[in-house]
Amino acid sequence: MSLLLDNQFKDLPPDKAIDTKLFLESVAHIPSFFDCLGSNVFSVIKSDINGNILKIKAVYVKDPAKYVTLQDIVEAEREAHPAEWPKVGATLGLMWLKRGLRFIQILLQSLADGERDENNPNLIRVNVTKAYEQALKKYHGWIVQKIFNVALHAAPYKSNFLKALSKGEEVKEEDCLANVRQFLVNYTVTVDAIYDMYTHLNAELDYTV
Amino acid sequence: MSLLLDNQFKDLPPDKAIDTKLFLESVAHIPSFFDCLGSNVFSVIKSDINGNILKIKAVYVKDPAKYVTLQDIVEAEREAHPAEWPKVGATLGLMWLKRGLRFIQILLQSLADGERDENNPNLIRVNVTKAYEQALKKYHGWIVQKIFNVALHAAPYKSNFLKALSKGEEVKEEDCLANVRQFLVNYTVTVDAIYDMYTHLNAELDYTV
Ligand SMILES: CCCCCCCCCCCCC/C=C/[C@@H](O)[C@H](CO[C@@H]1O[C@H](CO)[C@H](O)[C@H](OS(=O)(=O)O)[C@H]1O)NC(=O)CCCCCCCCCCC
Ligand SMILES: CCCCCCCCCCCCC/C=C/[C@@H](O)[C@H](CO[C@@H]1O[C@H](CO)[C@H](O)[C@H](OS(=O)(=O)O)[C@H]1O)NC(=O)CCCCCCCCCCC
Repeated sequence: MSLLLDNQFKDLPPDKAIDTKLFLESVAHIPSFFDCLGSNVFSVIKSDINGNILKIKAVYVKDPAKYVTLQDIVEAEREAHPAEWPKVGATLGLMWLKRGLRFIQILLQSLADGERDENNPNLIRVNVTKAYEQALKKYHGWIVQKIFNVALHAAPYKSNFLKALSKGEEVKEEDCLANVRQFLVNYTVTVDAIYDMYTHLNAELDYTV
Repeated sequence: MSLLLDNQFKDLPPDKAIDTKLFLESVAHIPSFFDCLGSNVFSVIKSDINGNILKIKAVYVKDPAKYVTLQDIVEAEREAHPAEWPKVGATLGLMWLKRGLRFIQILLQSLADGERDENNPNLIRVNVTKAYEQALKKYHGWIVQKIFNVALHAAPYKSNFLKALSKGEEVKEEDCLANVRQFLVNYTVTVDAIYDMYTHLNAELDYTV
């Protein structure tokens, strides 16, 4: 059984509203994704993403009936903290979380599409770099960008990465990638919907860290 | 008033036993030291050190009367987890915490001793590098070592660093360094005592991360 497929994201309704409870359940499995990368370097990213999730959860549990959708949370915070918003609370946590989710999406999609370095077919650096450039690089100053370039050398081999995605079982590359494609369907729709919401609510920021 | 001097470490008794409660109170002020370094890159280190402190505190609060000294904790864990010890619980947290404390000690001592790059007298890279080489480098694999070399460029100017140590007040460099020297007295004795304890209990490990 695939680790990814065990934790499918849910279908979205036609209005693309994202149910907070279901979303939190689905993303709860993401941080452990970084364990399968095999280097303690990634524990930093794991805890950053985990922090984002906790920020959202902390708001949600205060009043689950009020915060049925992610948009309910973002709008309530805009109301409650007009001066700091959107650089505040769960709005900020979700702003960064969606970038990490997008990074994962692009990485997995690139693998599923068979993009590879023909000279090093068992490396995933081209895929990781593509994901980084599209999802994160512009939000990072030059020091963090350089750190990314170093950390890239800790990326696992493709075979080990796919094996880890399949809970350590030896599966054929094509079978694992089929699972990835299946996973990406609802996942991509969800990530896109969060991005669209940030655009519509004018909640996106582009400061660098 | 100096931020450092506000939070002096306590005198140790002749047997160099470290009172857990007093130690936890003193180190509680350390994580915010990394805020004054001015770059979000250091928030990673801040939370690593914070995690170490929480590990020790978590054990202590379970039975303050049993864990009066740090050595009480380390010995109790040796008893309770013979197979994993010393790579376990507060013993592991304190093992890493002492390295971060040593790093800070050497950095401050080097500044207090006037060690400087004559060509760049307002940079602290020579001091930070010395501290890193003596306290941490051997516990880091090549990727983390390279990340250190990049992160070094985020180190603040000496003038800003000393100002931050003095809670943002403009103080004369010599006045600030006098405070640092004062702070280092009990601090160094405490850090040395933890290192000695790890040596005597054979609790030190040298794996790399
Ligand atoms: C001893 C020597 C060591 C020296 C020190 C070295 C330190 C190195 C630090 C490097 C940075 C690590 C990555 C973390 C970056 C984070 O800084 C950013 C912004 O993080 C956000 O910041 C906000 C405030 O501005 C809030 O605090 C958010 O928090 S909240 O409280 O609002 O919830 C928080 O996520 N997150 C990010 O950029 C997101 C990163 C997602 C990563 C996705 C996968 C990348 C995979 C890469 C594979 C190769
Ligand atoms: C998107 C792109 C980003 C890509 C990702 C980049 C990620 C970069 C990560 C770089 C590493 C950051 C520093 C953290 C290093 C930590 O890995 C180590 C060991 O950390 C220990 O590990 C143990 C298990 O082995 C336990 O978990 C300990 O935890 S416990 O649970 O047992 O309590 C834990 O402290 N601590 C250390 O090396 C200690 C570091 C102290 C630092 C002192 C000051 C240094 C100042 C430097 C100034 C220039």
